[in-house]
Amino acid sequence: MRTVDLIAKKRDGGELSRSEIEYLIQGYTDGSIPDYQISALAMAIYFRGMTAQERADLTMAMVESGDQIDLSAIAGVKVDKHSTGGVGDTTTLVLAPLVASVGVPVAKMSGRGLGHTGGTIDKLESISGFHVEIGNDQFVDLVNRNGVAVIGQSGDLTPADKKLYSLRDVTATVDSIPLIASSIMSKKIASGANAIVLDVKTGDGAFMKEMEDTRKLAAAMVDIGNRVGRRTIAIISDMSQPLGYAIGNALEVKEAIDTLNGQGPADLYELSLTLGSHMVVLAGKAKTEAEAREMLEQSVRSGRALDKFKTFISAQGGDTAVVDRPELLPAASYRIDVPAREDGYISAIAAEQLGTAAMMLGAGRATKESAIDLAVGIVLHKKVGDRVAKGEPLATIHSNRERPDEVLESFYESIAISKQQVNKPQLIFGVIGD
Amino acid sequence: MRTVDLIAKKRDGGELSRSEIEYLIQGYTDGSIPDYQISALAMAIYFRGMTAQERADLTMAMVESGDQIDLSAIAGVKVDKHSTGGVGDTTTLVLAPLVASVGVPVAKMSGRGLGHTGGTIDKLESISGFHVEIGNDQFVDLVNRNGVAVIGQSGDLTPADKKLYSLRDVTATVDSIPLIASSIMSKKIASGANAIVLDVKTGDGAFMKEMEDTRKLAAAMVDIGNRVGRRTIAIISDMSQPLGYAIGNALEVKEAIDTLNGQGPADLYELSLTLGSHMVVLAGKAKTEAEAREMLEQSVRSGRALDKFKTFISAQGGDTAVVDRPELLPAASYRIDVPAREDGYISAIAAEQLGTAAMMLGAGRATKESAIDLAVGIVLHKKVGDRVAKGEPLATIHSNRERPDEVLESFYESIAISKQQVNKPQLIFGVIGD
Repeated sequence: MRTVDLIAKKRDGGELSRSEIEYLIQGYTDGSIPDYQISALAMAIYFRGMTAQERADLTMAMVESGDQIDLSAIAGVKVDKHSTGGVGDTTTLVLAPLVASVGVPVAKMSGRGLGHTGGTIDKLESISGFHVEIGNDQFVDLVNRNGVAVIGQSGDLTPADKKLYSLRDVTATVDSIPLIASSIMSKKIASGANAIVLDVKTGDGAFMKEMEDTRKLAAAMVDIGNRVGRRTIAIISDMSQPLGYAIGNALEVKEAIDTLNGQGPADLYELSLTLGSHMVVLAGKAKTEAEAREMLEQSVRSGRALDKFKTFISAQGGDTAVVDRPELLPAASYRIDVPAREDGYISAIAAEQLGTAAMMLGAGRATKESAIDLAVGIVLHKKVGDRVAKGEPLATIHSNRERPDEVLESFYESIAISKQQVNKPQLIFGVIGD
Repeated sequence: MRTVDLIAKKRDGGELSRSEIEYLIQGYTDGSIPDYQISALAMAIYFRGMTAQERADLTMAMVESGDQIDLSAIAGVKVDKHSTGGVGDTTTLVLAPLVASVGVPVAKMSGRGLGHTGGTIDKLESISGFHVEIGNDQFVDLVNRNGVAVIGQSGDLTPADKKLYSLRDVTATVDSIPLIASSIMSKKIASGANAIVLDVKTGDGAFMKEMEDTRKLAAAMVDIGNRVGRRTIAIISDMSQPLGYAIGNALEVKEAIDTLNGQGPADLYELSLTLGSHMVVLAGKAKTEAEAREMLEQSVRSGRALDKFKTFISAQGGDTAVVDRPELLPAASYRIDVPAREDGYISAIAAEQLGTAAMMLGAGRATKESAIDLAVGIVLHKKVGDRVAKGEPLATIHSNRERPDEVLESFYESIAISKQQVNKPQLIFGVIGD
């Protein structure tokens, strides 16, 4: 097999066989196939796409390029949730204890990563004492005992994907649906999931801005999962504005606690119930979504969901006092209300720009080396469709600088106010793979 | 300027500006832009093409990446001829003395290269004593004195093109008309040509097998030349069968001598007159092609063309006795006639396969390290359209091995004989840029 012939085959619209894809991925991982051949291949894939079988084969070749987490010591169906990423997305913090509280085992491997705010682990670390430095045995033991645990990424998972992603990032081949879908699915599968619920975001603050692309990506991922024996469902949800009100690490932890308490933002709660009920059904803990949703709502109403959160936090060293007294979470020195400059209705909140404003405050990492300020962020008081009077606060900026003027400027730029009444945007656009 | 943004621009069908192309080529040449970005760019160009202005800018950026030959010390318009390559293409050996004999200065820089037979320099070195190890001053002096000289490639011409070509070769991005056209034209322009006549071959033995692609390539090259101030014309000529009868180094020298003597193959002579008359017109030595052709034919009839060949050979140390006694050229130990196995008409001669057969005899280089046997090769006795009787020799194989069985086998496979009468193929399909 010659790499150049395989590039030409893809370039000419041919379908690569399983063994050809394995040859390419193994060779790329072990260094025998150089970057410059794989970047040309990636660009050919950008133009020619991949068949469903090629996407599945690519995913599994990347899974097999490194370590795979074995969760078989955990009883039950391990259902993982993955979000394609957005601004103020607090669902993981809500979902983990919520579905665990109805008997779905949650063995979450998570990361820190780059972005507008930190990763799930960063957020949880705003709780004093909480840590993810636990061994694999302890991790499995905690899930079996409490139903939920979070661990940092360990082992060398999907090295082919890491290498390929870095290459795509500098060769303008990121925006390829088969490559995105295979990348995401390979990581989920290598992490040991038996079934997967995907939250595929669409709109300004999402990776996919257009509905057509979002649906294609969701369908590609669902198809890969089902082809390789992992039952997979995708929810398409709105990211035209931030989810919930809070953008920031400790601020989102507080919002998650509020939501588990039945007092969180409606959109965050609704999306958590939708994703959660699919997880419960896939885990075999309910027959229908309606039944599952009822179980989850009941768990919130009864306080079991919040209790599960406390158990989870406590088991990993965290101070559960924050659950009842969120003021114990890291707090910023300055809280700056941002008043509306006119009367009207909020017609748009540019989620991506708002996320960048939060990053400018220090809530997220621009580079791997950046330090995160867990306290800072933005809490919205209004969402799209809400009425606002001149002078009324649109949001509160939590800052450790007294005058974060450029953040205020950016904030105002991201908000549009209309004189006409505006409808609230649809939250959930569909389910793929149900 | 970020390379990844320029790749994305091309990927999305945008037009790269002159300064963007210069940035990419300079960066690639000096190593600051890595192979993997340029291979992704090349694949994007494969799919998106390049505008006429981009092709011209790429060509000049590659010209400016290295040394450029200054031929200004040679009086007159320096017209270079370039063939896109074929099997048994002896035109350079004929054209150089032929056009020089009517006053067109020929300052030829040539190479050895890979292929079915050697390059022009290899062929000329079958003449005892001939050498191209002359200094630049002597080269210029010889052209000014005799009207013609050949020198080996010196200096670091178009290093960007060399690097890019090597990369394209292993990334399935060779077959891109804008990249091929820019590569060829950059080398010609860096070699100091004021005007260029292109012989663009089409058919089985050519790089371009299909007429539509051939015309596109020819048009692209002509457009580049004229945009950068080098008057350029392309002749599209047949390479569905070998040109002339001889394939091999010394064998082609003999055929060139025959042609300069007015006794060569009709197709080789006709193509030489066509290319030559365009060169003469571009050099300003005749007003019309008809006038130029008459001058060239007259030069052959009068013996001036052959005399010019002798002067040229002699000035570079060659033994001119071979001109009158071609048996002094290197000769193979075995001459093996290959008889027709049936009666009929030659309906096809697979040029590329025949070229490979000649290479198997030792006439060409498969790799840079291969040694060439100047004596060996194949001389056809029949061309497409010719009648042949069973047992009559189709060709003579000149071999230094007694039984080159695999070459014979390959030879027979390359020849098709039909019972029906077959027309001789058209030789010249058009002129672009006239």
